[in-house]
Amino acid sequence: MKILLTNDDGLYAPGINRLYQVLKEKHTVYMVAPEREMSATGHAITLHKPLRVKEVELEAGIARAVNGTPSDCVKLALEAILPTPPDLVISGINSGPNLGNDVFYSGTVSAAVEGFFLGYPALAVSLVLEDDFRDFSFGAYYINELLSRNGSKIVDGKYLLNINFPPIPGEEVKGTKITRLSKRNYSNIFDQRIDPRGQKYYWMTGSIEEKEEKESDTLAIKEGFVSVTPLCVDLTNHQEIPELRKMEW
Amino acid sequence: MKILLTNDDGLYAPGINRLYQVLKEKHTVYMVAPEREMSATGHAITLHKPLRVKEVELEAGIARAVNGTPSDCVKLALEAILPTPPDLVISGINSGPNLGNDVFYSGTVSAAVEGFFLGYPALAVSLVLEDDFRDFSFGAYYINELLSRNGSKIVDGKYLLNINFPPIPGEEVKGTKITRLSKRNYSNIFDQRIDPRGQKYYWMTGSIEEKEEKESDTLAIKEGFVSVTPLCVDLTNHQEIPELRKMEW
Repeated sequence: MKILLTNDDGLYAPGINRLYQVLKEKHTVYMVAPEREMSATGHAITLHKPLRVKEVELEAGIARAVNGTPSDCVKLALEAILPTPPDLVISGINSGPNLGNDVFYSGTVSAAVEGFFLGYPALAVSLVLEDDFRDFSFGAYYINELLSRNGSKIVDGKYLLNINFPPIPGEEVKGTKITRLSKRNYSNIFDQRIDPRGQKYYWMTGSIEEKEEKESDTLAIKEGFVSVTPLCVDLTNHQEIPELRKMEW
Repeated sequence: MKILLTNDDGLYAPGINRLYQVLKEKHTVYMVAPEREMSATGHAITLHKPLRVKEVELEAGIARAVNGTPSDCVKLALEAILPTPPDLVISGINSGPNLGNDVFYSGTVSAAVEGFFLGYPALAVSLVLEDDFRDFSFGAYYINELLSRNGSKIVDGKYLLNINFPPIPGEEVKGTKITRLSKRNYSNIFDQRIDPRGQKYYWMTGSIEEKEEKESDTLAIKEGFVSVTPLCVDLTNHQEIPELRKMEW
């Protein structure tokens, strides 16, 4: 398979490099990633400055670094750089979860959505981090095996999948659950402080109020499963249309 | 009504100022907006620098300027700044359309989505610009009348609506259509150039390939109607779940 690989943690992040190393054994991997960390950039794109691409030699192989966002990388790769169209776009492995409505803020997921917009099946892949658990190997091998087993189904079905790995060693992972996105709320979002010149400022922070709804991605992770959520990109609330048409405008 | 007003074009943009002027006659308006232009920031949030809020006196009244994204403004307003919770969040009026899957890139829409996440009904409001048409008055009065006529329905129904105005004078507008998001594709996305030092760079550009699908927002605008699309925030593709559960994982 020909795979476009990107992320939002930047070129040197451990997750994407581990995945590159594992996937390159069987696949042609084109890695095009942001030159620096781009977390929480949502689906931002770069319209007002020129984009540049630099070749960089990594341990896993050659990669291209872009001075832009994850979405920029995917657009640029698919529309200008790659010698041939890939079969699949993979974004990740992200350092940290992309669960529930947090996917809206996620550069990792946005890069996959961008690939999907441009007509490609796509996977957003994230590892939930906890304490010092930072082992991307299980995730990388999982994706590799998934492609061997179900690669053609994913490609033919043009799926857009959001995959999260639980923060536990591979041998403790209980299996895979097909899930839906949970609703995550944050409480105490801001930490208000006073700077040395007496001026107020705010840090965005807050603790997550998990709703562990049945069949949700959040619950699957909590129970030690890999969570796979199929995503759609039509934000229209079709159910509300008939009701709104009855209102006077 | 108590209204939180924000945008992504920044504090001094004509659209938000026109809307503020019109809405303040009947409503209590809290304007909290980015201190500079933040278009195409998607749903970016600011985690790695402190946010600051500055009071600014505008012609329409007092506003608060934030050194962050549209989503930052809404989070900060609703969770830290506003003296009392608003009834409604309005983002706009944006200078330019937010139609079809472009809503994914839109700071305007993301600000409304953020309000909705935090439990508030919300409107994203945009004016399609064409040639020299830049008259935000019709849009501002339309929103004002909409609130008089359907304000309680919008608030009680907790709607998240994406509203676009066509680029024509108010007296030529044919009415309102309840629409769904179209699919917008871009072709020739990148303009590749060589800088004076012989290095390649790219401008993101491209022309829109409109698909004027029946009942879509794009078609409504083209025909001279105001387009109102109800949005949802669950990106789960529920239809694909049963099929994916049949696959071996």
